[in-house]
Amino acid sequence: MIDLHLIGIGTGNPDHLTRAAEAAMRAADLILLPRKRADTADLMELRQMLCADVLRDATRVVTFDLPERDGDGPYLGAVHDWHTSIATCWADQIARHLPDGGRLALLVWGDPSLYDSSLRIAARLHAGGMAMRVTVVPGITSLQALTAAHTIPFNTLAQSVLVTTGRLLASAGWPPGVDTLAVMLDGGCAFRRLDPAGIDIWWGAYLGMKQEALIAGALTEVSDMIVERRAALRAEHGWIMDTYLLRRADLKP
Amino acid sequence: MIDLHLIGIGTGNPDHLTRAAEAAMRAADLILLPRKRADTADLMELRQMLCADVLRDATRVVTFDLPERDGDGPYLGAVHDWHTSIATCWADQIARHLPDGGRLALLVWGDPSLYDSSLRIAARLHAGGMAMRVTVVPGITSLQALTAAHTIPFNTLAQSVLVTTGRLLASAGWPPGVDTLAVMLDGGCAFRRLDPAGIDIWWGAYLGMKQEALIAGALTEVSDMIVERRAALRAEHGWIMDTYLLRRADLKP
Repeated sequence: MIDLHLIGIGTGNPDHLTRAAEAAMRAADLILLPRKRADTADLMELRQMLCADVLRDATRVVTFDLPERDGDGPYLGAVHDWHTSIATCWADQIARHLPDGGRLALLVWGDPSLYDSSLRIAARLHAGGMAMRVTVVPGITSLQALTAAHTIPFNTLAQSVLVTTGRLLASAGWPPGVDTLAVMLDGGCAFRRLDPAGIDIWWGAYLGMKQEALIAGALTEVSDMIVERRAALRAEHGWIMDTYLLRRADLKP
Repeated sequence: MIDLHLIGIGTGNPDHLTRAAEAAMRAADLILLPRKRADTADLMELRQMLCADVLRDATRVVTFDLPERDGDGPYLGAVHDWHTSIATCWADQIARHLPDGGRLALLVWGDPSLYDSSLRIAARLHAGGMAMRVTVVPGITSLQALTAAHTIPFNTLAQSVLVTTGRLLASAGWPPGVDTLAVMLDGGCAFRRLDPAGIDIWWGAYLGMKQEALIAGALTEVSDMIVERRAALRAEHGWIMDTYLLRRADLKP
């Protein structure tokens, strides 16, 4: 029996860690730290520092390499195949390091519910016959780190917010009936596809980390600045994690 | 100069507290705990227990009564008036307990960015001439506590989620182009207004608290159960905080 804990660890600021996350890390027999090839040392180092800071002797920490997502073919099909490959990797690591079962933890950036695949990968292992119980420990998301860093509300008074992706924003444009969009997983600056008139943006990269970068303003004025800053930061660090909030200024409270 | 820290404390589970929230509580000169008349002792007691658990000697804790929102008249107008009254209350408490300025903290259920008025009230005081710096400490939201308790993802694979209110759901129905709704501030079980066919619901009340209640299933099957359970729990405890996720089952990944 694998007692799997998916632990939200926030966006890289160790102070985002909750008491529950610390307790779940310490109670684990094994913490698996997956390494993507695209990651630079930074992201692995952050998680290793977190482990060194929080853990006592009882927990083993094992790093392993994740397969890369196939960049060719339809997006959703490639993601499904990728999740299957990752599930196989998890199963290999579990067979090697917890052959008699036990308490396994994975450290998830942000929160395990929000644009993260860990729950889906665990469901594959469960469907494949692995005896498994899953517990989720919520963590501070990049959206909360973003609104906190900019000191802004997520929603305008009594209104909705659409949490969406760069891919959907680029293909569908600004959806009707909503004054605020929170955009994640945008590697292509999809905000450039919008008519910028009347739209404000609050952008943040490396939220909560020492490299944190913030830009806010009218999209007409800061759009190019964000595109350039993002490219420069990505070149400098070798990777970037960023997110942003868009609000139609004419609809602000 | 008032150095105001709005601290997200999660949904009532002390283990949701982040390291940053604990540090911000301890660093405060004064913590103001507003008491709504509608609150029973439970919610005040939870915050007082949190203070007793976290604080050392340096921080004073002061409770004060909040005005009630006027139930008559148009909703948004009543909310604006209410925020103005609350701003006056804050100003009174600040004048009384921090006349020479200092570090003030407010403990916000969930996260200060998400359907919370503290940032707007602080903006009123600032606009009214109070010298003030605002810092937001993010906290675990009820939406994350909900998805963690049900062990479900917030979004389906690569899709959007509309975060909305019971009021908007009741008036506008299911919006086009989105397979998942996260509904907050719903005192009237607005899910009953929808055609329930093909919709799944994950409902939670008192998330993270000892009274936590969870119901999930096809809306055709559990809708009445939630309405009855909610009424019974509200009668039993004198108050209720709940939220839910709706997903069109035919669109699930």
